[in-house]
Amino acid sequence: MKVMILGGDGYLGWPTSMHFAAQGHEVLALDNYLRRKICFDTDSNPLVTRPTMPERSILFEEVSGKKIETEAVDLCDYRKFESIFKDFMPDVMIHYAEQPSAPYSMRGYEEARLTLQNNLDVTFNAIWAVKEHNPNCHIVKLGTMGEYGTPNIDIEEGWIDIEHKGRSDKFLFPRQAGSLYHTTKVLDTDLIWFYVRTYGLKVTDLMQGPVYGVATEETASNDQLESFFNYDDIFGTVVNRFIVQAVHGVPLTVYGKGGQTRGYLDIRDTLQCVYLAAMNEPDAGTLNIFNQFVETFSVNQLAEHVQKVSKSLGLDVEIKSVPNPRKEMEDHHYNPAHSGLLELGLKPHYLTDDVMASMIESVLRYKDQIVTRRIMPRVSWK
Amino acid sequence: MKVMILGGDGYLGWPTSMHFAAQGHEVLALDNYLRRKICFDTDSNPLVTRPTMPERSILFEEVSGKKIETEAVDLCDYRKFESIFKDFMPDVMIHYAEQPSAPYSMRGYEEARLTLQNNLDVTFNAIWAVKEHNPNCHIVKLGTMGEYGTPNIDIEEGWIDIEHKGRSDKFLFPRQAGSLYHTTKVLDTDLIWFYVRTYGLKVTDLMQGPVYGVATEETASNDQLESFFNYDDIFGTVVNRFIVQAVHGVPLTVYGKGGQTRGYLDIRDTLQCVYLAAMNEPDAGTLNIFNQFVETFSVNQLAEHVQKVSKSLGLDVEIKSVPNPRKEMEDHHYNPAHSGLLELGLKPHYLTDDVMASMIESVLRYKDQIVTRRIMPRVSWK
Repeated sequence: MKVMILGGDGYLGWPTSMHFAAQGHEVLALDNYLRRKICFDTDSNPLVTRPTMPERSILFEEVSGKKIETEAVDLCDYRKFESIFKDFMPDVMIHYAEQPSAPYSMRGYEEARLTLQNNLDVTFNAIWAVKEHNPNCHIVKLGTMGEYGTPNIDIEEGWIDIEHKGRSDKFLFPRQAGSLYHTTKVLDTDLIWFYVRTYGLKVTDLMQGPVYGVATEETASNDQLESFFNYDDIFGTVVNRFIVQAVHGVPLTVYGKGGQTRGYLDIRDTLQCVYLAAMNEPDAGTLNIFNQFVETFSVNQLAEHVQKVSKSLGLDVEIKSVPNPRKEMEDHHYNPAHSGLLELGLKPHYLTDDVMASMIESVLRYKDQIVTRRIMPRVSWK
Repeated sequence: MKVMILGGDGYLGWPTSMHFAAQGHEVLALDNYLRRKICFDTDSNPLVTRPTMPERSILFEEVSGKKIETEAVDLCDYRKFESIFKDFMPDVMIHYAEQPSAPYSMRGYEEARLTLQNNLDVTFNAIWAVKEHNPNCHIVKLGTMGEYGTPNIDIEEGWIDIEHKGRSDKFLFPRQAGSLYHTTKVLDTDLIWFYVRTYGLKVTDLMQGPVYGVATEETASNDQLESFFNYDDIFGTVVNRFIVQAVHGVPLTVYGKGGQTRGYLDIRDTLQCVYLAAMNEPDAGTLNIFNQFVETFSVNQLAEHVQKVSKSLGLDVEIKSVPNPRKEMEDHHYNPAHSGLLELGLKPHYLTDDVMASMIESVLRYKDQIVTRRIMPRVSWK
């Protein structure tokens, strides 16, 4: 199968590129290095610097014998996008090419506008390239569980049947996100669903929760192939922040009450999910939506888990609450469905003590490179 | 009150500018003439050419003694937008500045992209100018009834309470539009609601149905002040198309089965509604949504009405069905609520035989200027 990966240099884009190549597919990875540029601009470099796409591609070929084609390109430019699409003619297009940081999107006008324009433009261009040149190409789009926000009702997988005044219809499940970044993914979903139902396209939209981990099957023989580990307030998730704080010997900072609950998954499960999604293409005119996570934790539960495992490794860890820089509910109902990918065959990896310990140990190796000022929030919603 | 009107040269923008000025408000009308440019580019000029903003402003001052300030500016440019906003410091901002043609938005890549970018950018810039420089400024945004599409349940005014598995919450009423243009207004609503709830802005979003008529109280003494009458497939609505076909002596063209039902209103009622909305500002952090129309008709009912009134004026009119260039339901449930604006004091004008006759008579005066090739659809959804 020919697989075109938009955002192929990203935290998930590169591991995905290797995973599809390892299974024998022909992979073209595209990226404009926007994430790396934002890391420079905001002093948010990852703990370990990673090679560029062509460098990674060479390293991967050495260990696997498989080739990954790469190209540095801004996919907001439709004429370039179209020309690459027509040359490669993918069977599947996996779309990660979005500015993925919530705090960055809330920083100021320029950052917000870049997020809105980049994310909508790439999605729009992806739709048009497919619609104009190969409507059979299956688009696998990465959305986020954050599109749903934290409603007071159970979250279904993408869709909901509404009964109202004696009549009923099926709609996209209501979406109400907590940052501009997450809101751009809501707009993506609206836009995609319009074009899918109007032109009979085939799209799978994956509502993914926060992902942890940097190592996958494909990185086993060379850790330079591992993905980015960001622990800063821009690209770092709460799991990474807690691990770095534990290693660095500062208290784990819980934002507000810590009841914020989300659905998490291991990076190896992202690869499984995206692969399963790609292999199960919807009928023309159908938008398949899956909720992509394997277990839910509150921020307090995560902090306690990091504390417990750190202790077993000889680290003394405190937990403290700090004012929440975000505007979000800190204590809420959260019961999202997530059976779709399990039914397709997903075999979950859970966040066990062993998995947690191995993540802490891998950060311990780079303890001296931790930059303290990156750990605390520098962007506020207020 | 200081009133800034975005899209002040448009079909509704100019009449709105005059209406607020006539009530003694200080009005600044802004426009980049995008609608006129698209009319040129697509051979869709209105039946009668209208003066530019500064010319209209002079004519209006002659008949009313009231001044309307105007400026030609592209509001996609945030630095210009911001500087004008800070100089004028409006109490109310009325936002019409969107590419409003559904067929244009479905024509090809360039037209679709222009529609998406222009509409989102102006909305985004309006939000940011207000948020950064005067969060008390009330934004009155023109949405469309087309955001809702034609669901199989009754349409409420903007919001819906959903009961699901024993729990309940309130959400934006599900939106599912029939063209890219209408979809950009769905995205606007998502974007606005995010910023309203996050930063405590005050916004009224008006879900407006198709508007007919060009004459208002303010145009009584000089018909050069009347609005654009477009009868082409790009900017003309079904009402205008039928009237022109009746006058021109060709059959009224019903798209498909003709059961397509929408909520219509007289341009004088748009002015009332927007004025009432502006005078009733929401609390900070509240998004007020009203459904703005006064009565519903199917396309068949409209055709029969035009036929009947034309006959009374001595015109012999046929009705014929043509293949539908759009993708839409031609026979559907349609029961939208619209009590909000009536409760604020709206006194509706209905589409009586007299109103219809006066619209037909006004087109009869320009019968010789009708360009036949503009009447039939030139853009298809398929």
